[in-house]
Amino acid sequence: MAAAKPLSAFVDGERLWARHMALAAFGARPDGGVDRPALSGEEAKARAQIVAWGRAIGLQPFTDQAANLFLRLEGREPGLPPVVAGSHIDSQPTGGRFDGVFGVLAALEMAEAIVACGKRPLHPVEIVAWTNEEGSRFAPGMTGSDLFTGGKELAEVLAIRDADGVSIGDAVAAVLASDDDVPLRPFGLPIHAYIEPHIEQASVLERAKVPIGIVTGIQGTRRYRVRVTGEAAHAGTALRKDRRDAVMATARMICAMDDAALEPADTLLTVGMLQVTPNAPSIVPAEAYFSVDLRHLNNAVVDRVDGEIRRIVDDLKGPCSVELRQIQHSPSLDFSPDIRRTITKAAAALGVPAMEVYSAAGHDARQLHYVCPAGMIFVPCRGGISHNPDEWAEPEHLTSGARVLADAVWTLASQEDGSSG
Amino acid sequence: MAAAKPLSAFVDGERLWARHMALAAFGARPDGGVDRPALSGEEAKARAQIVAWGRAIGLQPFTDQAANLFLRLEGREPGLPPVVAGSHIDSQPTGGRFDGVFGVLAALEMAEAIVACGKRPLHPVEIVAWTNEEGSRFAPGMTGSDLFTGGKELAEVLAIRDADGVSIGDAVAAVLASDDDVPLRPFGLPIHAYIEPHIEQASVLERAKVPIGIVTGIQGTRRYRVRVTGEAAHAGTALRKDRRDAVMATARMICAMDDAALEPADTLLTVGMLQVTPNAPSIVPAEAYFSVDLRHLNNAVVDRVDGEIRRIVDDLKGPCSVELRQIQHSPSLDFSPDIRRTITKAAAALGVPAMEVYSAAGHDARQLHYVCPAGMIFVPCRGGISHNPDEWAEPEHLTSGARVLADAVWTLASQEDGSSG
Repeated sequence: MAAAKPLSAFVDGERLWARHMALAAFGARPDGGVDRPALSGEEAKARAQIVAWGRAIGLQPFTDQAANLFLRLEGREPGLPPVVAGSHIDSQPTGGRFDGVFGVLAALEMAEAIVACGKRPLHPVEIVAWTNEEGSRFAPGMTGSDLFTGGKELAEVLAIRDADGVSIGDAVAAVLASDDDVPLRPFGLPIHAYIEPHIEQASVLERAKVPIGIVTGIQGTRRYRVRVTGEAAHAGTALRKDRRDAVMATARMICAMDDAALEPADTLLTVGMLQVTPNAPSIVPAEAYFSVDLRHLNNAVVDRVDGEIRRIVDDLKGPCSVELRQIQHSPSLDFSPDIRRTITKAAAALGVPAMEVYSAAGHDARQLHYVCPAGMIFVPCRGGISHNPDEWAEPEHLTSGARVLADAVWTLASQEDGSSG
Repeated sequence: MAAAKPLSAFVDGERLWARHMALAAFGARPDGGVDRPALSGEEAKARAQIVAWGRAIGLQPFTDQAANLFLRLEGREPGLPPVVAGSHIDSQPTGGRFDGVFGVLAALEMAEAIVACGKRPLHPVEIVAWTNEEGSRFAPGMTGSDLFTGGKELAEVLAIRDADGVSIGDAVAAVLASDDDVPLRPFGLPIHAYIEPHIEQASVLERAKVPIGIVTGIQGTRRYRVRVTGEAAHAGTALRKDRRDAVMATARMICAMDDAALEPADTLLTVGMLQVTPNAPSIVPAEAYFSVDLRHLNNAVVDRVDGEIRRIVDDLKGPCSVELRQIQHSPSLDFSPDIRRTITKAAAALGVPAMEVYSAAGHDARQLHYVCPAGMIFVPCRGGISHNPDEWAEPEHLTSGARVLADAVWTLASQEDGSSG
């Protein structure tokens, strides 16, 4: 088939766009955005819609104890591990219509194309929607992919509760109960290759006017919380020598951290959150609590600045005490060269401009990359805006992304066992 | 009389203390503190109690369009301007039992002593409770003394509203309506001398174990609000060169301001309030809004650092924009040498240890000092704590303060016209 007409020729851009709009109705916000928390009733309805679309073309749905959703299209050799593509359908409270959804619907469109072309690849193909990628209802995110790949313990994860006290365990049970005859599978089934299409959430592609990003990897991240504890005092009477001013110590630390991240120029260090207590103009601050977000594509850079940060808080705390807590450490990772090459070739064969980009944000593909060859396809999003009702992707970019995905998956699913990356 | 037995001999420390405790019942907080907003119903009740105490010893109450309360004891020459002593009876929401109240009750005790001694001074003597010193219900404070001394326009002040939308004008009218036959007088009547007793609100006296502070003046203050406006951006993708990070610019400014206030060592510079927008860990801050509180006893120091602050915000704003607004400028002031000398002599004659201190906080005495010889007497407060339910002054210190006040007022009220300051 591929010789005559590539799989991508069967991708229907109008259907793909219409499904984005249809799915946005589940958890629709008045401002055009989407509020669809993980494992919520709205997400369960969106899930049922996806199952219905899949069943309509003969896909077999499966789920697991994390409520991950799989739609399987058998290949010519059912015993082979599947090529999996997808993303997630939960959203931030002020989310948009494309983040996550695009990956699932592009994968579904790929399956539609396979069915339409009338041929089957060697490997089975599966579409996936991972549970709780966003982490905004239940923190942290990546719940489904973490559990599937064995990155976390089930019992521990199921006990996590949302702000209303509902546990992931109870929320998963409710979603599974709402499923219409969707069988359970165990975690960790072998996967031949994984591709996750996603909006870029940055503006590198948009600025370069290139519709396809071949994602080289995910940059390394360390996130910290720093609590500087001083002592409240009267701004009009307490002498400098007697003060334990939490804001002054904090300002020194922030400047030093900023300096430590000057080189290389693409080192990203952000103090996005800073809270002062009691935060009164005439009181010397008793406490400052702030976040530090450090990212770079090179682990050596992240680790060097990490060392500096730990030295800085100690060196500059002055008469205050300081507590630094690293709340996240995700090393940078490189996606499979085989997957990147396959995506590059698919785009080139289609004549769609593509360029290498890296992902600043985390994705389920990080978890999958630990267990199988994995990669991502990015499409531009307007202004780099995501997690926002204004999130927007051009229909033709989504179509291009789905077409590149279809041909790349066909290539991967046609590989004889063992030939992958 | 003074030759035989000083006026202070008639001061009753137990009554003075009992009246502090009695007044604390109006607006009492469960934690032992006082919440008695300016011009509130609770303050009106406290006011009625003071009028009742004054009437019991023959004092004539007066008020004015700011609801300032005066209790007058005629002297031997009723045409002479009075010696006035007092302070205020409004409190902060989390206030204590001594701030302001001590000045009014010490003055009342001074009048009690005059009545008890059976003689009259040459000048009339008045006790005053100024309206809205604290400025916590209606901002700014010093309303009554500002209006009395002509520092502000009546119409403008009466239009100021509290958080519930009630104007000072309406609140004053309610208090005046609650008065029991208290005649109105015009603002600005001549005053021979003014003394305001007050708790120190610092711990200089406590550390020195000295019960009486002869206040040399009030340190100069400049207060600012600084708004640094940058642009929100994704912490994981926006490069340093593209960022307009409001927190980074702010941290640089704060460090530079702190450095600018290093000398002299008693220069006080405080950033007590700092708010970040949107204040999310993974978003480069779009805005930072912070307070700067600058104080020193020497105007030249305050003015030099003021110049530095204005230069710093401009030099260090980087790619952000900055708006600096000075919201208060009170030059440092020296109290009348004559009043200071009179207080010093009164303390010495009584054998009560006294030392010179300056006031870090503003007081109604600042306003009075513009129109007559004025001064203040401080007594220690535990730990320098005020504006706090834990505010505490030792009964014997309050008694010493009232005794020094009584003798100092007697001296001033005995001066032939023209002999003052």
